[in-house]
Amino acid sequence: MSAPARVAVVGVTGYAGFELARLLLRHPHIERPVFYLRESHAGVRCLTDLFPQLCGWGDAPCRPLSVEAVATSGAEVVFLSTPHEASAEMVPQLLAANPRLRIVDLSGAFRFRRPETFAQWYKLAPPEASLLAEAVYGLPELYAEALPTARLVGNPGCYPTSVILGLRPLLRAGWADMTRGIVCDCKSGVTGAGKEPKRETHFVEVNENFRAYGLFTHRHTPEISEHLGLADANFVFSTHLLPVDRGILATLYVWLDSPRKLAEVETLYRAAYAGRPFVRILPAGTLPELRHVAHTNFCDIGFALDSEGRRLVVLSCLDNLGKGAAGQAVQNLNGMRGYPETAGLL
Amino acid sequence: MSAPARVAVVGVTGYAGFELARLLLRHPHIERPVFYLRESHAGVRCLTDLFPQLCGWGDAPCRPLSVEAVATSGAEVVFLSTPHEASAEMVPQLLAANPRLRIVDLSGAFRFRRPETFAQWYKLAPPEASLLAEAVYGLPELYAEALPTARLVGNPGCYPTSVILGLRPLLRAGWADMTRGIVCDCKSGVTGAGKEPKRETHFVEVNENFRAYGLFTHRHTPEISEHLGLADANFVFSTHLLPVDRGILATLYVWLDSPRKLAEVETLYRAAYAGRPFVRILPAGTLPELRHVAHTNFCDIGFALDSEGRRLVVLSCLDNLGKGAAGQAVQNLNGMRGYPETAGLL
Amino acid sequence: MSAPARVAVVGVTGYAGFELARLLLRHPHIERPVFYLRESHAGVRCLTDLFPQLCGWGDAPCRPLSVEAVATSGAEVVFLSTPHEASAEMVPQLLAANPRLRIVDLSGAFRFRRPETFAQWYKLAPPEASLLAEAVYGLPELYAEALPTARLVGNPGCYPTSVILGLRPLLRAGWADMTRGIVCDCKSGVTGAGKEPKRETHFVEVNENFRAYGLFTHRHTPEISEHLGLADANFVFSTHLLPVDRGILATLYVWLDSPRKLAEVETLYRAAYAGRPFVRILPAGTLPELRHVAHTNFCDIGFALDSEGRRLVVLSCLDNLGKGAAGQAVQNLNGMRGYPETAGLL
Amino acid sequence: MSAPARVAVVGVTGYAGFELARLLLRHPHIERPVFYLRESHAGVRCLTDLFPQLCGWGDAPCRPLSVEAVATSGAEVVFLSTPHEASAEMVPQLLAANPRLRIVDLSGAFRFRRPETFAQWYKLAPPEASLLAEAVYGLPELYAEALPTARLVGNPGCYPTSVILGLRPLLRAGWADMTRGIVCDCKSGVTGAGKEPKRETHFVEVNENFRAYGLFTHRHTPEISEHLGLADANFVFSTHLLPVDRGILATLYVWLDSPRKLAEVETLYRAAYAGRPFVRILPAGTLPELRHVAHTNFCDIGFALDSEGRRLVVLSCLDNLGKGAAGQAVQNLNGMRGYPETAGLL
Repeated sequence: MSAPARVAVVGVTGYAGFELARLLLRHPHIERPVFYLRESHAGVRCLTDLFPQLCGWGDAPCRPLSVEAVATSGAEVVFLSTPHEASAEMVPQLLAANPRLRIVDLSGAFRFRRPETFAQWYKLAPPEASLLAEAVYGLPELYAEALPTARLVGNPGCYPTSVILGLRPLLRAGWADMTRGIVCDCKSGVTGAGKEPKRETHFVEVNENFRAYGLFTHRHTPEISEHLGLADANFVFSTHLLPVDRGILATLYVWLDSPRKLAEVETLYRAAYAGRPFVRILPAGTLPELRHVAHTNFCDIGFALDSEGRRLVVLSCLDNLGKGAAGQAVQNLNGMRGYPETAGLL
Repeated sequence: MSAPARVAVVGVTGYAGFELARLLLRHPHIERPVFYLRESHAGVRCLTDLFPQLCGWGDAPCRPLSVEAVATSGAEVVFLSTPHEASAEMVPQLLAANPRLRIVDLSGAFRFRRPETFAQWYKLAPPEASLLAEAVYGLPELYAEALPTARLVGNPGCYPTSVILGLRPLLRAGWADMTRGIVCDCKSGVTGAGKEPKRETHFVEVNENFRAYGLFTHRHTPEISEHLGLADANFVFSTHLLPVDRGILATLYVWLDSPRKLAEVETLYRAAYAGRPFVRILPAGTLPELRHVAHTNFCDIGFALDSEGRRLVVLSCLDNLGKGAAGQAVQNLNGMRGYPETAGLL
Repeated sequence: MSAPARVAVVGVTGYAGFELARLLLRHPHIERPVFYLRESHAGVRCLTDLFPQLCGWGDAPCRPLSVEAVATSGAEVVFLSTPHEASAEMVPQLLAANPRLRIVDLSGAFRFRRPETFAQWYKLAPPEASLLAEAVYGLPELYAEALPTARLVGNPGCYPTSVILGLRPLLRAGWADMTRGIVCDCKSGVTGAGKEPKRETHFVEVNENFRAYGLFTHRHTPEISEHLGLADANFVFSTHLLPVDRGILATLYVWLDSPRKLAEVETLYRAAYAGRPFVRILPAGTLPELRHVAHTNFCDIGFALDSEGRRLVVLSCLDNLGKGAAGQAVQNLNGMRGYPETAGLL
Repeated sequence: MSAPARVAVVGVTGYAGFELARLLLRHPHIERPVFYLRESHAGVRCLTDLFPQLCGWGDAPCRPLSVEAVATSGAEVVFLSTPHEASAEMVPQLLAANPRLRIVDLSGAFRFRRPETFAQWYKLAPPEASLLAEAVYGLPELYAEALPTARLVGNPGCYPTSVILGLRPLLRAGWADMTRGIVCDCKSGVTGAGKEPKRETHFVEVNENFRAYGLFTHRHTPEISEHLGLADANFVFSTHLLPVDRGILATLYVWLDSPRKLAEVETLYRAAYAGRPFVRILPAGTLPELRHVAHTNFCDIGFALDSEGRRLVVLSCLDNLGKGAAGQAVQNLNGMRGYPETAGLL
């Protein structure tokens, strides 16, 4: 068994950061994590000062954030649950100050191979090309073998995790009729929209409501095209806001290149995810639902196929804070440190 | 102005029936409607016996249901808010007993040209072919001219209303690239699933949940293909259950045959629905949302188009009990009787 | 029948203001109302510029707000749906500029007899004592006779409306054992908390949650004590936030001074509210619920009594935007102008 | 450390039973539990047959239910998550068949000292008086010392747990003015209403709704009076249905016999629950909320006191499936077997 990890976390005030804190506090291979906060939180000494609801459940020290403090803290792994621009700025500083640090970044800053992709979709100055080239896209079901030696992991977006896991086996097998389009119709709970109070996330604007948003402009688009090898012209990725706290359901539409049976599809996916504890392929006739993955790190995948075997609908479902963010970050930690993949996640 | 209508309603205990009752009670051209109930409601003399929440708002007499009672009631127009099999059986009996009756049926029994379509999708004995041939599909935006002389109107399903209104102008104009597929990803509130208590509609099963259902088997499918002229192999129609009371959002994906501008699309739709008070074409940049159509008879339609002008997403949104059921039934009544199209609906 | 009213509305951007706009647009005795907005809404010419969801339903002009513009607009009745301090400042200015104006103020500024009450609970400078003395507390079920001649009406708070209507008949009859305490446990939907985005009204903070707030400090307290004649020491008024859009349920606990039968209680209340169309006394065994009053101007009142006839629970239920705000404001207008009490409200 | 427990569970198909299963599967001192099901579940071999959503998370064998099978199963502790009448019948049979069995019953059958209490409130034949006399009321914060030797534990109701924990320190200290009444206004999520589909738990009947129910007839009433020593005439216990899945908030109103300071109240409660890991006394100014206790075994208690120090509101908050049912059952198991009180519950 690998040695326990000393861990630091930068940023805990968002929904993903809090979820990460909860997971780390009960992770069996982590020594008490240390949390670093901006000055606006002066006076906060420990997590339960910030989140009294954690009292009696777990706690951890909070310290003022500075690159030097984190770099010299003794932490071996640092989680960044910070805005894109903060991550883009802090990662090179941290690695310069302490080259042995290993970083899991939950922002979008290190998810792309090419600086231009980040610049184009995020309208922000991109990180250095060398760091992007080094960064591992932290989707363990695809890139687990890169984790043990990774110094920098870009934790995937919630939507791309659902879409990529839902389509990858099919596209790799070449079963999709690419002369037709692929449609990825995705729906997410409100924690995915962030904790900052905004008109769009006011209770009355979301409750008893439903709407699409970000069509053709959502920043998660290039993650999907890059890791599925899809040309923009061949797929549509859409996002909608569900009146629930947590969860993503992606409904994925593919025309098959030749007639298939549902059992063949199921077999293809079972083979693709054999040995992957967090992808659950549902048996024919069962479709995933949000409540079965809420508060878990699972991605549930189910299928419906027309009677001619040509029109396939893949349903992919996960918790946007679990497998879509904090859970996946812990799964990446497990891969980086050689812990069992499910450690702290069941 | 046409004369006021004497109206009878069969079936008021479901969600659509109750919505219809509320609309009829405040309709300016309707004399007090009479409601006919099955024996299980013996002792119910008026609507407020059944729905005390209507007290102080409106009321109407309730009578025991029989074909004879309805046929000889003096009613000129009969609404059937009954199960498919009940409608299939009762319509010919009512018309035989009183050939001058005019009927708006809210079930699925009279929505199809061919008996086989009904038999195949509903697994029920179909109504006589002659009645199906006579019945008008009650989507006024398409078939308004047939309403003034219609004796039998099959009120459309809620999903098809959203999908057909959302796609019809585009398909009639021939702008869709039919070598690619069309995807109709639809989401509905729970009133669409009926009032009967079932495991699937228990609060705890729906709340904080979201899931697809009825893929490739939903009975609303043939309405869509028939009125859009689509071959089954070329489109997918999917349905999902939203944790809200009311509303449908249909997200419709079409690849265009040649590049278009968003303004062209908007213009096409505005022309198609010119003079139709209940279809609202939203300006570029605005997408429909459930809460803007809840408790109304509107169908809101909005668009998103990629920068190449090839991938179009049409959003079509309505209240499944309003434009998707009871509101549309009243709109049909208005057309049949020559009342202003919006009478009782604003 | 009285002449139609020319009406101006100041403030329409909050939830109560929008509800008021909807009601006024369909009121049969109101000429097209005019809305006055602050400069931050420059460019807005009409309501549908601000609320596109009103398109096809109704519209009205919007104009820049100034005291002079409103005073010289020709409006006979002005509704103020503005913050407390804005109302406190604007009412004397409007009346000075045009003494024939009649005003319904939806804020808390003109609900109290004494300036000190306002100053103590609102921590704001109170309006002049003479205006407070003149203002009518706009609860028509109590003070209808003052409305026809009222120049200034302070529209009641949503909670006090539910509590006062629920307890008044009992307390006037002297049936309460005042040596025991009266408890008013109230629960409200989120529209009562305002439209401004705040941490407390973020969807994720409200959804699947429930909590008390404002205990012993809620500004609605003095309205209750004043109009029920209760000493502070003898009652508790508490407020809770429900995860719903609209509605208030007040659960009111009274020990009776001598044993009563449920039928006696019901009779007492029916007599007290005889001829009042918006208070519905529910029959024994039926308790009010939010969904039966949502989107209405009704206040539903029901009862439960223990078998000894001593412990009484009164349930009082209304829509906080309807009878609790905008609906009541229209009801006040009807009383001021001599229209039927239900005009525009059913 | 005590030896691991061999555990059997009868009934897992309700919400509390499923929650219990989840807790037992991850309890560190429990060998794989065995679940016993009625014949209607023939063919079910293991929990994941019944609940596919547990796949990858945990599993346990399911066997056909018979008294003999459970009694000879080798189980040392049996949990009954069965209807009241089933528990009343099965407990004596199980103890007759195997006198060394120890039982935690989650129904209402063994919560009362006197058979008449059960008969009166549940309208069912009561269990034998000797078993009722023997049974321990399983509220560990009150009766922990009886657990190590208890053979039969009646697991408390969800509402009584919240009310008793919220009022007990105050009443024991004699601080309440008992010439005034005590009001216990309680609100619960829908899992408390059971999993059977009923009109009252249909999504559309609960969503956007709120109502009181069971006033003066709720079966949880006698638990409260018995364990708080309250005469019926001196308190009112009311229950309301919240549109949320989980959680109870009890708002408890007490007039104090002499003026107190908030700090004194807090000190009283902290002393009363010193060393009890699952009761969290919140600091002055902080009130409990559902989301902070959902999915936990905590009971959060907070206070508000008027400026005269006479009118006290105690807020008590827990998860009706956690501390209100399954969590408390596990806490009782821990007490019976000598495990740490928090084992399997954090």
